[in-house]
Amino acid sequence: MNTGSVRAVIFDVFGTLVDWRSGVARELCSHLRVSVEEADALADAWRDEYQPAMEAVRAGRIGFCKLDALHRRNLDLVLDRFGHDADETTRRDLTLAWHRLDAWPDVTPALTRLRERFLLAPCSNGNISLMADLARRNRWHWDAILGAEHARDYKPKLEVYRAACDAFDCAPHEVLMVAAHSSDLEAAARAGLRTAHIARPHEHGPGRGEIAPAVPVDFVAPDLGALAAQLGM
Amino acid sequence: MNTGSVRAVIFDVFGTLVDWRSGVARELCSHLRVSVEEADALADAWRDEYQPAMEAVRAGRIGFCKLDALHRRNLDLVLDRFGHDADETTRRDLTLAWHRLDAWPDVTPALTRLRERFLLAPCSNGNISLMADLARRNRWHWDAILGAEHARDYKPKLEVYRAACDAFDCAPHEVLMVAAHSSDLEAAARAGLRTAHIARPHEHGPGRGEIAPAVPVDFVAPDLGALAAQLGM
Repeated sequence: MNTGSVRAVIFDVFGTLVDWRSGVARELCSHLRVSVEEADALADAWRDEYQPAMEAVRAGRIGFCKLDALHRRNLDLVLDRFGHDADETTRRDLTLAWHRLDAWPDVTPALTRLRERFLLAPCSNGNISLMADLARRNRWHWDAILGAEHARDYKPKLEVYRAACDAFDCAPHEVLMVAAHSSDLEAAARAGLRTAHIARPHEHGPGRGEIAPAVPVDFVAPDLGALAAQLGM
Repeated sequence: MNTGSVRAVIFDVFGTLVDWRSGVARELCSHLRVSVEEADALADAWRDEYQPAMEAVRAGRIGFCKLDALHRRNLDLVLDRFGHDADETTRRDLTLAWHRLDAWPDVTPALTRLRERFLLAPCSNGNISLMADLARRNRWHWDAILGAEHARDYKPKLEVYRAACDAFDCAPHEVLMVAAHSSDLEAAARAGLRTAHIARPHEHGPGRGEIAPAVPVDFVAPDLGALAAQLGM
């Protein structure tokens, strides 16, 4: 398709740019001294509380709060359910495990190339400090940090995508949303953005991740380097 | 003073990091085909409308809108007052002159050094897209773009400084606000931040700018390189 009018590219982060499951499980393993198998199960259970917690904000049952606060509350729930005790310092540090995730190997070089032509920002449900820490760790250079904390609501509410476009003075059709999740891209398309699906076949563990979009999208790529090439970079 | 607890440094931009008057006058000169003297007078008149326009937002008389929108309204006022006609395209492009300003020569190398130890963000009344454009032009690498559009109000409202601290998960005393304007620093100090004054003796034209703070501050420096040295960088 014609990419001439795309001026900005915005990104989902957890799963799309970083491997959250390996990073979170690694820290659970070392902090709680549990087996790798149990750490994986804890990481999955922690992530399973992600959407219900954000739904309370989206539905207006609680006011907007940073994802760090939701992560902490969900950690407490999951530790309790699994019968793990952990002191306050450990819980605080574990909550910050989400600030210390590593990018999939294709990401950093592709972002560097894409930045030569496009404005770039995360459009994640993660808070600004979390995005800033991931950027430092993985050597990303964003033009701004957009997403949930900027919009004060959580994806897939359409306002989050629209607020990102507005921050860059772009019409929605001038912005390309990149994600490894069809639900995210379906919402972005409804907000008027263009969409690109990246395959992350191992996001939820070996062989457990989206390998293809389940909704119509503008671009389909096996990784971010391939998407950059499709965009002429 | 002990700088050990400072984790983030945030910056006023217009006047402190960029020479707005020369840049704006240069574009007025070329777009309107006026003399250098008249362009300087127009730039000063345009800037004189800056505080009154923001005051309408701060006082709640109008809802928050981006500085670009205020700049455009103020340009129309000033062109009318000076008896200049200009078409819509010219007015739109002139409004973006504020996106194309050059840094004072000491700024970019000092920001690069400061970023080795501190989280960095603008805390300006300029909107996100304006800050992103200035960063690209001057090769700055911000961790986030904070300030008025993030807080949805204008400095010197204390909430703007506090929102910047909160975005970085910092207590106010962990954040250093840098500006060339005593009024900005006085407000930041009231919000609980640490403060640093940079001299910009030519901000409003030769010999017309603050050379020293008129309020108590934590650091006083002749330029940003000297401040970085005081901070141990």
